Amino acid sequence: MSRFLLKKYASLAPYVPGEQPKTGGYIKLNTNESPFPPSEKAREEYIKAFDRLNLYNDPENGALAAAIAERFGLEASNVLLTNGSDEALAFIYTAYADAEHPFAAPEISYGFYPVFSQLTGAENVTFPLKPDCSVDAEAFVKTKHNVVFANPNAQTGTAMPPGDVERIVAASPSRIVAVDEAYVDFGTESAAGLIKKYPNLIVVRTFSKSRSLAGGRIGFALSSAEIVSDLKRIKYSFNPYNLGRAAEAAALGALKDEKYFSECVARVIEAREYTASEAKRLGMDVVDGKANFLLMRSGLIDGGELKDRLFAEKIIVRHFSTPFLAPYIRVTIGSMDEMKAFIKVLENILKGAVK
Amino acid sequence: MSRFLLKKYASLAPYVPGEQPKTGGYIKLNTNESPFPPSEKAREEYIKAFDRLNLYNDPENGALAAAIAERFGLEASNVLLTNGSDEALAFIYTAYADAEHPFAAPEISYGFYPVFSQLTGAENVTFPLKPDCSVDAEAFVKTKHNVVFANPNAQTGTAMPPGDVERIVAASPSRIVAVDEAYVDFGTESAAGLIKKYPNLIVVRTFSKSRSLAGGRIGFALSSAEIVSDLKRIKYSFNPYNLGRAAEAAALGALKDEKYFSECVARVIEAREYTASEAKRLGMDVVDGKANFLLMRSGLIDGGELKDRLFAEKIIVRHFSTPFLAPYIRVTIGSMDEMKAFIKVLENILKGAVK
Repeated sequence: MSRFLLKKYASLAPYVPGEQPKTGGYIKLNTNESPFPPSEKAREEYIKAFDRLNLYNDPENGALAAAIAERFGLEASNVLLTNGSDEALAFIYTAYADAEHPFAAPEISYGFYPVFSQLTGAENVTFPLKPDCSVDAEAFVKTKHNVVFANPNAQTGTAMPPGDVERIVAASPSRIVAVDEAYVDFGTESAAGLIKKYPNLIVVRTFSKSRSLAGGRIGFALSSAEIVSDLKRIKYSFNPYNLGRAAEAAALGALKDEKYFSECVARVIEAREYTASEAKRLGMDVVDGKANFLLMRSGLIDGGELKDRLFAEKIIVRHFSTPFLAPYIRVTIGSMDEMKAFIKVLENILKGAVK
Repeated sequence: MSRFLLKKYASLAPYVPGEQPKTGGYIKLNTNESPFPPSEKAREEYIKAFDRLNLYNDPENGALAAAIAERFGLEASNVLLTNGSDEALAFIYTAYADAEHPFAAPEISYGFYPVFSQLTGAENVTFPLKPDCSVDAEAFVKTKHNVVFANPNAQTGTAMPPGDVERIVAASPSRIVAVDEAYVDFGTESAAGLIKKYPNLIVVRTFSKSRSLAGGRIGFALSSAEIVSDLKRIKYSFNPYNLGRAAEAAALGALKDEKYFSECVARVIEAREYTASEAKRLGMDVVDGKANFLLMRSGLIDGGELKDRLFAEKIIVRHFSTPFLAPYIRVTIGSMDEMKAFIKVLENILKGAVK
């Protein structure tokens, strides 16, 4: 830290991304990426985009905004494109969060929410999960604060029923409700259908997971035209050309290939159900997850040690050292072959384990 | 604006990017892009990158940081990669600017500096240009504030002699000096060589102009390891994966092609000198510019009208309505053919003009 850095950031603890191994040979189940390449239609558009890479992109990303709007039965004025969904969240916190206006979030959720709170000087308001690790919808119905939660929730993968999401949004029109739907395509109902009805709702989405474009950096927010206009005011005061031509082209191509999208999602769901059932057979406690990952723990080995022992066998999973999550490992759902390899290694590790 | 937007942004006036025409047939001399496509080596790397677009990029962009560091005789810890240089500037203001710590800038310069000041609640401190439209180095030597200026300067294109830049940086070690070198490759000496000597210096660069990658979104900041560490703290609290795989690949490819880079730069300089000399021949007052654009005015037609009349002839230039710039047009340097077409149209317009 330099002596120039503003004092308010002295205790800022930035987000720590999952490890990206520099060498090959690992089965990488730690950052919730897709095991499948992006669509070939994304490739076509991506390659074509190179020829005009000397020119700035359309700062409105009008073509992509229109394609997304059509998909959700909305207008382009309801869509904000961002450089990954983290940037959408960053713009939301910048626009709406300060010391007087915190966002309440689940105690266990995406680790970036408390960082955004710190960055914007907002209190880190959280509500505990329920005993089954699901988000306590009632607490979010009752709070007067702005609200952010992931659905399915981050780290746990639990899904909130659509009725509960609507109850939270409807409870008070005088606060923002941001629903982070990074994992929604793997079997949860989206809240996007509520946007026309509730001008205080923001739905945040990404092409990183179900569209196999994590390295392409494409996210978006859907909301009322008023809120999108706020977020654009922040974007145009921060980074107007935030979504470049390569990202826009790949996203447009991916949207043209619903068949491939559905196949990839179906394969992830199939591998997730296989993994959950096999892990349970091996005695693991598996949280009921609807995302492209599963949170699970062994009664015999702590999460940190299990992660290390999997790593020694060239399988990378994610471990979080916060007390609630410490007993668990979070396992991204890869291809069926990868999950079979994971289960085999897990079985061997558990065989030798005695508490 | 929604009723949720924080009151501090009520009067925020975002940056307005230059027009991106949706249809073809225009000679586009308004947003300081390169008229040449990116290097074929950039294409190779860009196409290869697609195969791993399902995986997150390295959030450190280690390979690109190392390549840039090598180019400037620095370490990777002196390099921060950003989604365009606007994001580098946004991170700099976020880290260092607030009501007590404004950045002083030239009164006429990149239009984004006052926006960043507003965004961070910092006063908009500016110093007038000298009568020849150059930046008044002496004012920046004397000020106690943090400093930001473009060199060559935005809108005017004037270059500051390297000795003046060093005097500004050396005048006080207790403030930040950010030199925005978006246009430096077109014939101005970079301050990057001073980074080892002055830990308070930040040099901001982009691949948008001289590397023909405006739509690729690649910028970077060079500074002391302490300052880069501050900026990474902001980055990892805002958008950790800010520079995706496509951008990193294209930039790495472009850096491998110094021959093409030098050719493109030489062609822009040649076309700039041609344009300046022809415009003067036609009676235009042309500011002595070292960037890939020229600021010029006619004694007969106001800048706004001249812009409109060029537009009617399918030539797009930029006009700014602030009092100082209103008489001028800013003309991006395109290819020699484009500049010949511009001069021909300009000559016709001026022929018919009577004040």
